[in-house]
Amino acid sequence: VPRVNGSPIIIPTSADVHAAAERLKGKVRQTPVLRIPAIDEIARADVFIKAENMQHIGAFKARGALHAVGRLDPAIRARGVITYSSGNHAQAIALAAKEYGISADIAMPVDAPLMKVQGVRALGANIVFAGTTSTERRNAALAIRDRTGGTIIEPFDDADIIAGQGTATLELLQEVSARTNGQTLDALFVPVGGGGLLGGACLASAGTATRVFSVEPEGCDAMARSLEAGQRVDVQPGPTLADGLKPVRVGERNFAIAREHVAGCFRVNDDQIRRALWLLLFSAKILAEPSGAAALAAALQPSLAGHFRRIGVIISGGNVDPGVLADVLHWGVAQSGL
Amino acid sequence: VPRVNGSPIIIPTSADVHAAAERLKGKVRQTPVLRIPAIDEIARADVFIKAENMQHIGAFKARGALHAVGRLDPAIRARGVITYSSGNHAQAIALAAKEYGISADIAMPVDAPLMKVQGVRALGANIVFAGTTSTERRNAALAIRDRTGGTIIEPFDDADIIAGQGTATLELLQEVSARTNGQTLDALFVPVGGGGLLGGACLASAGTATRVFSVEPEGCDAMARSLEAGQRVDVQPGPTLADGLKPVRVGERNFAIAREHVAGCFRVNDDQIRRALWLLLFSAKILAEPSGAAALAAALQPSLAGHFRRIGVIISGGNVDPGVLADVLHWGVAQSGL
Repeated sequence: VPRVNGSPIIIPTSADVHAAAERLKGKVRQTPVLRIPAIDEIARADVFIKAENMQHIGAFKARGALHAVGRLDPAIRARGVITYSSGNHAQAIALAAKEYGISADIAMPVDAPLMKVQGVRALGANIVFAGTTSTERRNAALAIRDRTGGTIIEPFDDADIIAGQGTATLELLQEVSARTNGQTLDALFVPVGGGGLLGGACLASAGTATRVFSVEPEGCDAMARSLEAGQRVDVQPGPTLADGLKPVRVGERNFAIAREHVAGCFRVNDDQIRRALWLLLFSAKILAEPSGAAALAAALQPSLAGHFRRIGVIISGGNVDPGVLADVLHWGVAQSGL
Repeated sequence: VPRVNGSPIIIPTSADVHAAAERLKGKVRQTPVLRIPAIDEIARADVFIKAENMQHIGAFKARGALHAVGRLDPAIRARGVITYSSGNHAQAIALAAKEYGISADIAMPVDAPLMKVQGVRALGANIVFAGTTSTERRNAALAIRDRTGGTIIEPFDDADIIAGQGTATLELLQEVSARTNGQTLDALFVPVGGGGLLGGACLASAGTATRVFSVEPEGCDAMARSLEAGQRVDVQPGPTLADGLKPVRVGERNFAIAREHVAGCFRVNDDQIRRALWLLLFSAKILAEPSGAAALAAALQPSLAGHFRRIGVIISGGNVDPGVLADVLHWGVAQSGL
């Protein structure tokens, strides 16, 4: 068992991602891989867009949650699952609990957007409103565990979650290979919050020629700073449109994997994210959330144009508030002079 | 050769749709068929959503155009193609001309939305601005033909166009069969402008148990009125959000096919269309244009809930003006109380 920071933790491997893909067959959607000429033209590359916004619950998080809940011992699972999240992981756990016919308790902030609350509730989970900070939510989750004996499923720092998220990259690489006579991506851009999707992407592409790049909002760059420092560093996340990408600290397992595999780090600002979201909407006809558009935003920065031949980007989710989308529309109309 | 209204015209057959599918292999995208629990719940049915908004140029029209231009004799094709359209057919012909390395002249109204003009221009076609009426555009196209000897490709009243459009339904039925152990749709809802997509849908589903229903905006119901009258009837299209569904008269070939095959006609209003567009955006994470959302709007009307077991809807396109989308967002926020 590898050790990081002195604690024994289980770091998943590439084989775990392959095993997860087998277990998730028929449970997750094999989401489309899109090729959009207008986007290729900007990147001066072949861009393969993995549309995880079209996954169950509108985000890749369904993969990890279905995998982690499915891996629990049935007797333990029967006591229910618990998590704390204001975002897509909450809906993902609610979905997985529904799939396995067990209860889910989700600690959410009192100021959670109504659309996200409705999404969790529609899947039949119990919501416990707990303050506004992640510490308050985590304490609420611990109190539920003491009461019910349920299992807390962490949003990203968990071997089964990471392996599950890796299946998105595995599908992408397999589809790229099938469409290009066995070629692979030169570069894969992955948005990072806590690092679950990134960790999985690293494992899924290990041993290939694909270089994996992390993408974070400017001012919410916990992964980039941690990789630069050689150890996990806390950040006080600044304001960003990408509400899914602002944890204070990346996961321990996620960092351990990233340190071995990540080829480089990118930071994007809100205008780059808006532009990517606009392009996905009007060129690819898909709705991405700002966090979901971030990877494309990095891939399309002018300094990279023509640098790679084949680029992969993961559109991590599509759960965007209508008000945020309206703002992007107004921004885009002003930009494009339409 | 069947005769309609005294003129000898070629009515395509089911075999022509199958032949078109063979010819279009690798040239058109096999668009995703989406299954969305929130939509199934409203319909109380299994709803299979064929996302032709994700087709090349953002609409099914690419199928007919690539097929029709591909079927031209190479010597004739070399003189270029011409069409008159303010909508998706213009971009589709521009794409097909680019694919075959020939010139395309498109007569568009002087008040065409800038986004559509840019779309056609980006594909390398020549635009001739000609008044604001379809008569002015058609006259402009005829003048170009006299000058260049190019071929006019009609937007819907053409055997090769109809056969090409039918391949969308063929793919849908094949995928439904593959996912349901050989079952078929009970009902297929198809939006109708001139009737190209509908004609193709009828031919593709001929001989199956699938009943085909036409969907038009209220006040733009040329197909419904024509089928009721037993002959083609002109309408003066009223105002509708669905700008792609307002021809004055349906095609002769399209009507001849519809008369044999269509099981019933539905009319939808702008609020039903807005709701369908909103649902597609936030549940399916895809962007439909109002015309593209119309079929789903009909399928989701409360009186049909639970009536069918398996429903197909074709999302015909996704080329929506940002301003129209912003309007739908404001409408939806007001409706949902978000």
